[in-house]
Amino acid sequence: MIKAGIIGATGYAGGELVRLLLGHKEAEIVWYGSRSYVDQKYASIYQNMFQIVDASCMDDNMEELAKQADVIFTATPQGFCASMMNEEILSQTKVIDLSADFRIKDVKIYEKWYNIQHQSPQYIDEAVYGLCEINREKIKDARLIANPGCYPTCSTLSIYPMVKEGLIDPSTIIIDAKSGTSGAGRGAKVDNLFCEVNENIKAYGVASHRHTPEIEEQLSYAAGEPVLLNFTPHLVPMNRGILITAYASLKKDVTYEEVKAVYDKYYAKERFVRVLEKDVCPQTKWVEGSNYVDVNFKIDPRTKRIIMMGAMDNLVKGAAGQAVQNMNLLFGLEESMGLQMAPVFP
Amino acid sequence: MIKAGIIGATGYAGGELVRLLLGHKEAEIVWYGSRSYVDQKYASIYQNMFQIVDASCMDDNMEELAKQADVIFTATPQGFCASMMNEEILSQTKVIDLSADFRIKDVKIYEKWYNIQHQSPQYIDEAVYGLCEINREKIKDARLIANPGCYPTCSTLSIYPMVKEGLIDPSTIIIDAKSGTSGAGRGAKVDNLFCEVNENIKAYGVASHRHTPEIEEQLSYAAGEPVLLNFTPHLVPMNRGILITAYASLKKDVTYEEVKAVYDKYYAKERFVRVLEKDVCPQTKWVEGSNYVDVNFKIDPRTKRIIMMGAMDNLVKGAAGQAVQNMNLLFGLEESMGLQMAPVFP
Amino acid sequence: MIKAGIIGATGYAGGELVRLLLGHKEAEIVWYGSRSYVDQKYASIYQNMFQIVDASCMDDNMEELAKQADVIFTATPQGFCASMMNEEILSQTKVIDLSADFRIKDVKIYEKWYNIQHQSPQYIDEAVYGLCEINREKIKDARLIANPGCYPTCSTLSIYPMVKEGLIDPSTIIIDAKSGTSGAGRGAKVDNLFCEVNENIKAYGVASHRHTPEIEEQLSYAAGEPVLLNFTPHLVPMNRGILITAYASLKKDVTYEEVKAVYDKYYAKERFVRVLEKDVCPQTKWVEGSNYVDVNFKIDPRTKRIIMMGAMDNLVKGAAGQAVQNMNLLFGLEESMGLQMAPVFP
Amino acid sequence: MIKAGIIGATGYAGGELVRLLLGHKEAEIVWYGSRSYVDQKYASIYQNMFQIVDASCMDDNMEELAKQADVIFTATPQGFCASMMNEEILSQTKVIDLSADFRIKDVKIYEKWYNIQHQSPQYIDEAVYGLCEINREKIKDARLIANPGCYPTCSTLSIYPMVKEGLIDPSTIIIDAKSGTSGAGRGAKVDNLFCEVNENIKAYGVASHRHTPEIEEQLSYAAGEPVLLNFTPHLVPMNRGILITAYASLKKDVTYEEVKAVYDKYYAKERFVRVLEKDVCPQTKWVEGSNYVDVNFKIDPRTKRIIMMGAMDNLVKGAAGQAVQNMNLLFGLEESMGLQMAPVFP
Repeated sequence: MIKAGIIGATGYAGGELVRLLLGHKEAEIVWYGSRSYVDQKYASIYQNMFQIVDASCMDDNMEELAKQADVIFTATPQGFCASMMNEEILSQTKVIDLSADFRIKDVKIYEKWYNIQHQSPQYIDEAVYGLCEINREKIKDARLIANPGCYPTCSTLSIYPMVKEGLIDPSTIIIDAKSGTSGAGRGAKVDNLFCEVNENIKAYGVASHRHTPEIEEQLSYAAGEPVLLNFTPHLVPMNRGILITAYASLKKDVTYEEVKAVYDKYYAKERFVRVLEKDVCPQTKWVEGSNYVDVNFKIDPRTKRIIMMGAMDNLVKGAAGQAVQNMNLLFGLEESMGLQMAPVFP
Repeated sequence: MIKAGIIGATGYAGGELVRLLLGHKEAEIVWYGSRSYVDQKYASIYQNMFQIVDASCMDDNMEELAKQADVIFTATPQGFCASMMNEEILSQTKVIDLSADFRIKDVKIYEKWYNIQHQSPQYIDEAVYGLCEINREKIKDARLIANPGCYPTCSTLSIYPMVKEGLIDPSTIIIDAKSGTSGAGRGAKVDNLFCEVNENIKAYGVASHRHTPEIEEQLSYAAGEPVLLNFTPHLVPMNRGILITAYASLKKDVTYEEVKAVYDKYYAKERFVRVLEKDVCPQTKWVEGSNYVDVNFKIDPRTKRIIMMGAMDNLVKGAAGQAVQNMNLLFGLEESMGLQMAPVFP
Repeated sequence: MIKAGIIGATGYAGGELVRLLLGHKEAEIVWYGSRSYVDQKYASIYQNMFQIVDASCMDDNMEELAKQADVIFTATPQGFCASMMNEEILSQTKVIDLSADFRIKDVKIYEKWYNIQHQSPQYIDEAVYGLCEINREKIKDARLIANPGCYPTCSTLSIYPMVKEGLIDPSTIIIDAKSGTSGAGRGAKVDNLFCEVNENIKAYGVASHRHTPEIEEQLSYAAGEPVLLNFTPHLVPMNRGILITAYASLKKDVTYEEVKAVYDKYYAKERFVRVLEKDVCPQTKWVEGSNYVDVNFKIDPRTKRIIMMGAMDNLVKGAAGQAVQNMNLLFGLEESMGLQMAPVFP
Repeated sequence: MIKAGIIGATGYAGGELVRLLLGHKEAEIVWYGSRSYVDQKYASIYQNMFQIVDASCMDDNMEELAKQADVIFTATPQGFCASMMNEEILSQTKVIDLSADFRIKDVKIYEKWYNIQHQSPQYIDEAVYGLCEINREKIKDARLIANPGCYPTCSTLSIYPMVKEGLIDPSTIIIDAKSGTSGAGRGAKVDNLFCEVNENIKAYGVASHRHTPEIEEQLSYAAGEPVLLNFTPHLVPMNRGILITAYASLKKDVTYEEVKAVYDKYYAKERFVRVLEKDVCPQTKWVEGSNYVDVNFKIDPRTKRIIMMGAMDNLVKGAAGQAVQNMNLLFGLEESMGLQMAPVFP
C-alpha cells in the first residue's frame, strides 16, 4: 500500500487527487495538507467527502511528511515546492509536483515568465517532465516529477505527432485554448464569481500566459529545433474541461489517411489518448471525470493548414489524474490503476 | 459474472447504467438495446464510450434477451415493460424496470395518473418496490423490481423517518422539488433546448405530476394511513441533481437531538444515506455522480413545522445507481458493489 | 431633469440602477458612489458602460450628495442608510433606500433578525414601504422610501390577493423561493464562485432568512392579523431571476374563475404585474431584464390547497426597477417611465 | 411610422427583432410571420411578450406583406428569401434579409457552400451587404439589404482596419470563433438540448463552415486581393454572445500606439464599435443585449503576430440589431434609433 501525502488538498486539483486516490486500490492518503484549514475536518471543506474521509487537515510540513509518505503530491502555488525541496526529502520519498516549479529546464525562462526566483534550481535537471505518453521510461526511475500543466498536456498531446514527424512547420503553430473555470482555482476573486463567468467568454493572458514556454519547450524537443508559438487561453462558463484548437501549416500535401496513421503511430496503444474517428470533433463533455484525452484533426486543402483538436478534463488528465498516472509509473503499478473510470455523461 | 441486458440504453438513465455496469466487477453488459439506433455503434451515440464499448445497439426483443441475460434493465417509456411482461420472461431472468409500470399497487391510480391502460396488471402484486433502504429484504427474493422514480426516491428517504415515527402530521406534507434537466430525458423538444432551460427556472406539472401518487403510496405505508400531499417539481438549469425541500407540521415539540436520533435510527447504518451535520444544507453538487442521498432537517419553532431536505444525483440513486443496488441485492452481492465512487466536485 | 445620486453604484443592484437611469429620459446620474473604487472610472469596473459612462466613482458623502441630488438611491449594506439619515438630508432630497433599514416597522424585529442596532429609528415610522402596487398613494408624498427586498416583492405580490380577500388561511402559508446568484451580491466569497454555484442547487437561511419578517409584516397588513409563515430561499445556477412557489390551504372551495377574478381585481390594471393565462407557469426567463412580475396559481382539489407562483428579475422589479418606479411616483412622472423595456429572451 | 413585417418571427433572431422594434419609436410591427404557428397568439410562443404583443402569427405571404409593409425582415432559412424575391416586391417595399441568400456576390460560391440552387441570382448584384460601419452610404439607397451573418460581422469588424491598412498578411489570417447557443436556432435537435450543450465545448464545421466565404469576401475587398483564411466556430454553453480571436502575421514592426491609431481611424466615430483600452480583453457579457461590438488587439513581438479580438451579442449586432440599424439607414433615421440600450450586466 503506497502511503500518499497531499499538500494543497483543499484546492480543486487537490480535491480531485483525494477523489482519485480514494478509488485507488494500492494507495492510501496519510496526509491531507491544507495550510488554510489546519485541524478542520477535510469533509467540512469538501462536503462530498462526508462519511468518506474522516481526517482533518494538516499543515504543510514537508519534512515530516517525507518521513511518513512514500509519495508527496504538491498541489500548491508556484514557488512553494521549489522552496521546500532538499536532498533529505528526495532521499526519503517521491515527489510529484503539480505546480510549474520543475517543468521548465531553463531557469531563466521560468523566472521571467513566473516572475519568481527559483529556490532550488539544482533539482531542475533531475526532475522528469511527467507527460506519461512521451516520457514514460524516464518517469519510472525519477525521484521528482514535474507534473505537466493542464494546457500543456492537452496542447502537446494534440500536436506532438505532427511535429515529431515533421509534417507541419513549427513556426506556424497557433493554439487557441478554452478552459473550464476550475482551472482558475478556488481563490475568492470577483473575476471568478458565478455572475462574472456565467453567460460569458473571454480571452485572458493573451501573448503572455505562463503555459506558453512550457508548451514551446516540449514541442521543441519533438521538433528538434526551438519553437515559438501563439497560445491564447479562454475562460468558458463550465466547471471542467479543456479544449484545444491548434492551427499549423502543412509542409507538404498529405491525405487524411496519412495523418491518421501518424496519430495512430503514437497513440494507438495508449490507454488514455483516443484518436477519434474521421470528422468527429472532440468535446470536453465526452471525457469529463476521466483521464482520457480525445484528439482529432482536420486538413484544410484550401489553406494548406491542419486544424488539430484535443479535449480533456483539466482536473484529471490535466492535473490529478496524470499525477496518479505518474505515481503508478513510479511505483511499478499498472499505469491505469485507479484511473479506469469511464467519462460521466451528461 | 452476471449477464445484464439493457433496453433503452441510449436514454440518459440507460447511458448511466452502462457507465455503472462497466465499473462493476461482477457484471457484464450483453445487450445494448436501443430501438432508435439498432445496428449503430453504441459509442457513436455516446462518444464518451469510444474505445470502451465496442458493441452495437440491439432492438428491444425482450424474449430473446431473457434467454441471454441474468437480469434485464428496462429504461423505457411508461407502458413498455408492462406490455412485454410474461411468465416466460420472469421464469428465465430477473427484471428491473426503471419505468413506473410496476411501482403503484393500485392499477386504477396508475392508469389515471399515467393515462395508460396497464397491459399486465397480474404482475403488479408480485413486483417489489425497489427502494433498497426500506424494502431490502423483500427485494432479495423478487423476480420483478419496480425501480423507484427519481423524485419519489429522494422525497421518501427525506421524509420517511418523520412519518414512520409519527412525528409529523402527514396531511400537512408539502414537497417542493428541484431537478436537473437530465430528468427530462434525451428527446428532442423545444422546451429542453439549451436556450430555453439555461438562465431559467420554472415549476411544471403543478398538482398533477405523476410521481405524486408514488410518493403518497410509500409514505402511506410508513404512516399506516392514506397520505395526500402536494408535490411540485421545478426544472433547474443544471444537468444532474435533485433537491427536495419538504415541509410538515410537527405533532409535538421536539428538539434537534430528538429528530437527529430518529434520522440516525433509520440511516446510521446505511451506506448511501448520509444524515448531514447540524445546519448543513444538502447540495446536489456534493453527491454528483455518486449513489448518495444527503438528508437533513431544520425545526422552525415559530411555525412548529419541520423543513426536511434531501439531495441526490437523479441519474444515480434516482435511476441507474439504485437499479444496480437492486441488482446487487437480487444476486446476493455486496450492496455497494460498483457504487463506491465518491461524488465528483466541482 | 431629476438629478439622481447612487451610493453603492458598483454592486449588482447599483449597476442595474445605472443601466435603468441611463435609459430614463427625465433623470440623470450625478453621483456614482462606490467607497471601494473612489476615483476609478466607473466604466473600468463595469466595462459594459465603456463609452457610455464617463464619470469616476465618488465616496459615500451623503450630506454633500443631498445638496447636489434630487433623489439619492442607497444600494448599500444593511445599517449604512440608517447610520447616515438625518433631518438635513431628508429636507433637501428624497431618499430611496434599497437596503432593509426602513422596511420593518417594529425596530425590535429588525434588530433581532439583522443583528444590528438601528441608528435612526425615529425615521422608521415616516418611511413608506415602496411596494408600488400596494402603497402607490402613500409613496407619492414620501420623503423616505424603503425599497422592498427582492424575495418580499415577489412573494407578497404572488400571495397578496388571496390573503386580502380572505380566501386562504394565513397560518398555512409556505413560501419556497429560488433565486439567481446576483442576489448574493458581488463580494468575493468562495461560496459564490462559479464552480461552487454552477451545476448545483441548495437551500440556505432555512427558517432564518431575514426577508421572512418583511414578508410576514406585509401579509399581516393584508390579512388584518399577524401572519407567521415559512420562507425557504434556494440558490440557483443562473445570474438573474426569482421564482416563488407558495402554498396555502383554501378556506373554502373555490373555482379557477373565482380565483382568477380575485387576481384580476388587484392586477388587471397594473402595468407590471401580469396574471398569466390558465395553466401557464411563470418562468424567470420570460421576465428577465424587465420590471414585470408574472404570477399565476393552481388549485389542488385533492389537498384543498392553492399553489401560488411568481417570477421576476431580482435586479429589476426586485431592486433597481422598483426603485425607479418609486422615483417616478415621488416625482409625479408616469410610473413606467424608463421601465418599458420588454423582457429579453433567450 | 414605418410599418415593418417580419417573416420568421418565432425564431430567436425574429424574436429579437420583435423586442427591438417594440422599443423603436418610429416603427411598428404589422406582421408577425411564422409558418409553424399561424393563427396562434405570438405571445403564447414567446411568453415574454404576454400583454405586450396582442397579435397572432401570420403565414409567409410575402406578396401580400409587401403591400402592407414599408420594410420586410426575412429571418428565415437559407433559400427562402431568394425563392420569394421579385420585382413587384422590391418595387413596393424594402427588404432586409437576415439569411445568407444575398450576401455572397459570386453565386457559384454561394451554391457550393450552401448546397442550394439560388432562385433569384438576378438580385444579388443589387443587394447591398449591410455591414453598416463599412457600407453605410450604399445602404442608404438600397432596396434589398443582405444583413451580414453573425460570425462575419464580428470577424470582419475585428480585423478590417488591419487588412485595410495593409498591416497584416491576409494569407495568414486564422479566426477562432466562439458562439452562444442561440446561434444554433430554435429547432428541436438532440445536439442543442440543454444536457448536451451545458458543461461542454466543441468545435464544429471545421474548415467547412458557411460563414467562411462571406468573411473572405469582405476581407478581400479590404485587402484588394483574394483572401483565403481559416475559420473555426465553437459552441459555448451560454445563450448569447460571439467572441472572435483572430491571428495574423504583421507585415512590419508596429507599436501599440500605431495599431491603436489604425483602429481609431475607422472606429473612433462609430457609435457601436468600441475599441477597448490597452490590455482590456473583450468579453461577451459586457455587450449582452446591446448593439455594441467591442474590439481590441494584442501585439506579440515574439512571434510577430497580432491577436485581434471582438465580442458582440449574436442576436443584436449579429442579427436583429444590425437589421434595425440597416432599417434606420434605409429610412433616413438616426442610425442608433431603437438601439441605444446599454448592455445588461450581469
